[in-house]
Amino acid sequence: ARPRVGYFYTGKSGVQLLTENLNKLVVKDYQSIPVVVNENMSVYDAIVTMFLEDVGTLFVVDQQSLLVGVLSRKDLLRASIGKQELTTLPVNIIMTRMPNITMCSKEDLLIDVAQKLIDKQIDALPVVKETDKGFEVVGRVTKTNLTKALVALANND
Amino acid sequence: ARPRVGYFYTGKSGVQLLTENLNKLVVKDYQSIPVVVNENMSVYDAIVTMFLEDVGTLFVVDQQSLLVGVLSRKDLLRASIGKQELTTLPVNIIMTRMPNITMCSKEDLLIDVAQKLIDKQIDALPVVKETDKGFEVVGRVTKTNLTKALVALANND
Repeated sequence: ARPRVGYFYTGKSGVQLLTENLNKLVVKDYQSIPVVVNENMSVYDAIVTMFLEDVGTLFVVDQQSLLVGVLSRKDLLRASIGKQELTTLPVNIIMTRMPNITMCSKEDLLIDVAQKLIDKQIDALPVVKETDKGFEVVGRVTKTNLTKALVALANND
Repeated sequence: ARPRVGYFYTGKSGVQLLTENLNKLVVKDYQSIPVVVNENMSVYDAIVTMFLEDVGTLFVVDQQSLLVGVLSRKDLLRASIGKQELTTLPVNIIMTRMPNITMCSKEDLLIDVAQKLIDKQIDALPVVKETDKGFEVVGRVTKTNLTKALVALANND
């Protein structure tokens, strides 16, 4: 039978198509550039870095540039109302450290990252590349990236 | 002509269906409960409230419970590394104030709120109800709500 104009075969509902489209999105197409700091940096300098770089999450690396921690705005705010002197307190005292860091790779599905951010109640994940020595930070995925993905889908981008 | 099983008329592509589905989502179905503080509260107490309530944005109201300001984690972090004493500094000195507050109503499209959050580089909007005297805060929409909406769409919810 010849296809008629305006008809096409799918057998799928709009909702199924929506789900399929969402499940095609991968991290590498939506990630941002990561901002990393050294584990010996002071909490004060980390806060300044956060403002200068205008990000909500910093990734902490060791001398070999391997991921050792994550610092959120919440972590820094908590430290800032503590009793300690911020200019001498190193970030490695207050950071979330390995193995408690939730990570992803650039080939992961964006929707799986969204689920992880919701489950763990965090704002951002490091995108990492595994090496023999540990994890290198190659990107950052945030709730902002996910919000932008939602807007792009709505705009047919 | 009788419709055949497995065929349906749309004249629309999957992407168009996706866009249509996204453009049906309204704020009231995705909003969270707002956390409000009084304009005379100290910055220190606002930070403590933010941790106790586990939110990233506080809305500031006057004696009539009308919206006068917004406090983000970023605003509080900036204040916390300043020279001022946080226990005596009132939030109305550091908050974003009217008319610079980006707001939405519960009937607004979720996607329009997402666009506003991106454009203004903010994490949350108050959902307001306009009255003769000003705006009452009835809800909160955050990038977390939008991330949850994305996950719900992907899961066919």
